[in-house]
Amino acid sequence: MRLNDKQLAQYHEDGFLLVESALDQQEVEQLRASFQRDCETPGPHLVAEEDGSQVRAVYASHQRQPEFSGLVRDPRVLVPVQQLLTEDVYVYQFKINAKPAFGGEKWSWHQDYLAWRIADNLPAPRQVNIGVFLDDVTEFNGPVIFLPGSHRNGLVHEGRTEQAKSEQHLDPDDIALSAEQLAEHVDRRGMVSPKGPAGSIVFFSPEIVHGSAPNMSPFPRRLLIATYNDVANLPSWPGEPRPDYVVCRDTEPLRPLAESFLTGQVSA
Amino acid sequence: MRLNDKQLAQYHEDGFLLVESALDQQEVEQLRASFQRDCETPGPHLVAEEDGSQVRAVYASHQRQPEFSGLVRDPRVLVPVQQLLTEDVYVYQFKINAKPAFGGEKWSWHQDYLAWRIADNLPAPRQVNIGVFLDDVTEFNGPVIFLPGSHRNGLVHEGRTEQAKSEQHLDPDDIALSAEQLAEHVDRRGMVSPKGPAGSIVFFSPEIVHGSAPNMSPFPRRLLIATYNDVANLPSWPGEPRPDYVVCRDTEPLRPLAESFLTGQVSA
Repeated sequence: MRLNDKQLAQYHEDGFLLVESALDQQEVEQLRASFQRDCETPGPHLVAEEDGSQVRAVYASHQRQPEFSGLVRDPRVLVPVQQLLTEDVYVYQFKINAKPAFGGEKWSWHQDYLAWRIADNLPAPRQVNIGVFLDDVTEFNGPVIFLPGSHRNGLVHEGRTEQAKSEQHLDPDDIALSAEQLAEHVDRRGMVSPKGPAGSIVFFSPEIVHGSAPNMSPFPRRLLIATYNDVANLPSWPGEPRPDYVVCRDTEPLRPLAESFLTGQVSA
Repeated sequence: MRLNDKQLAQYHEDGFLLVESALDQQEVEQLRASFQRDCETPGPHLVAEEDGSQVRAVYASHQRQPEFSGLVRDPRVLVPVQQLLTEDVYVYQFKINAKPAFGGEKWSWHQDYLAWRIADNLPAPRQVNIGVFLDDVTEFNGPVIFLPGSHRNGLVHEGRTEQAKSEQHLDPDDIALSAEQLAEHVDRRGMVSPKGPAGSIVFFSPEIVHGSAPNMSPFPRRLLIATYNDVANLPSWPGEPRPDYVVCRDTEPLRPLAESFLTGQVSA
């Protein structure tokens, strides 16, 4: 799948682009099964809910599960990323968040790239994120909310270089915007939360301001987020690097599969 | 304003009914000014945010501010309530919630009448609530979410009769539904959050299951909620009654004004 000129312009204008139902239901089922399998594989890549009862997030499943290894190279995913960023990209981070029913984590507004610059010394915001809906996303189950166009203002909150609170990720509060900054953005361009059926994909900028509401629904909501980085824009650490399930070390440029990841699976 | 047959049927079917832009912008401005005035009137009717910085809720403004005294008798409000409930009604409770920007209280799902039966021995669910939007309500600023039709199942969670945690209101956690009960409702009928411009009014049943999300927006969101009760269905207390700003003592049946509350104000 190649994005057309209108889609490319929209991404650059708004900082995100939704492609509804990019994957079909059979593919979604395969990815869900693969996620379940990865949740049952012990290891540090599993993040449990605070009460320990359920898996809240899984990292780097593309390093263990063939469906996700295929998905990050699927032409419907990788080709648009190459169009939006550059030919030579690799997966810098891969995670699946399972936002539990009746809750989920505290929201806050942030820009991803600021966290990555602080934690991994990423030189430039040369990334594209993809969000793959593993469940239908509605206004009720904690959709990601974007401030359109906010990626074009650079980093709106600078100055923190302290150690991250967590080794897995920065606490979003570390990089929260001021109330005035947010109000100004929203006054100008509003707020948008892309919604759609499972299998939809949202591409979004590492600099766009976004947050997410709790999941009010009685059903969990799974969202896959992969971040592609330009291979000419590698992280570096003066001290201990972040774990390799959080920041992937394989920086070989990815090449698109000839066909969909599922076709590849079946024929393999 | 009289509700037509279709609107009446919809209220009884779904448990709520939205009337968009029932009040005009000038009236909304008057109500906002009246709310602000009431926020600056010291007294126990003011509930502050936890950090004490702002007013989070105000009770019984209709007992102090002429605009609200008029509004609860305005024919666009009182006549539909009489159609939905009975001719002789009074205001049992009146409050305005100012859901602060970037947050607001923890949501949970509940049925109002259960709380009132426990706290005030209200004999029957002979009430109608009105929610008057004092700000535009969007998917982002903590709209009330209803489970359509859930008012027709009676009280889905019974059995708690302990003392309320707060003298002003029950903690919604005291009456939360089980996860299974909620999932079953939502599977059947889905979830709906009425949205619309300031001045819209939502009428809703005391038995409908509802909750509300936090306010993700950078602007506060004010919502007026008044509960009308049948004068033949009065509260009673074996011990100390709840304060009169929480449960209004004036049970004289209300009569609709001849014209809108604002016209009445201006001509008065």
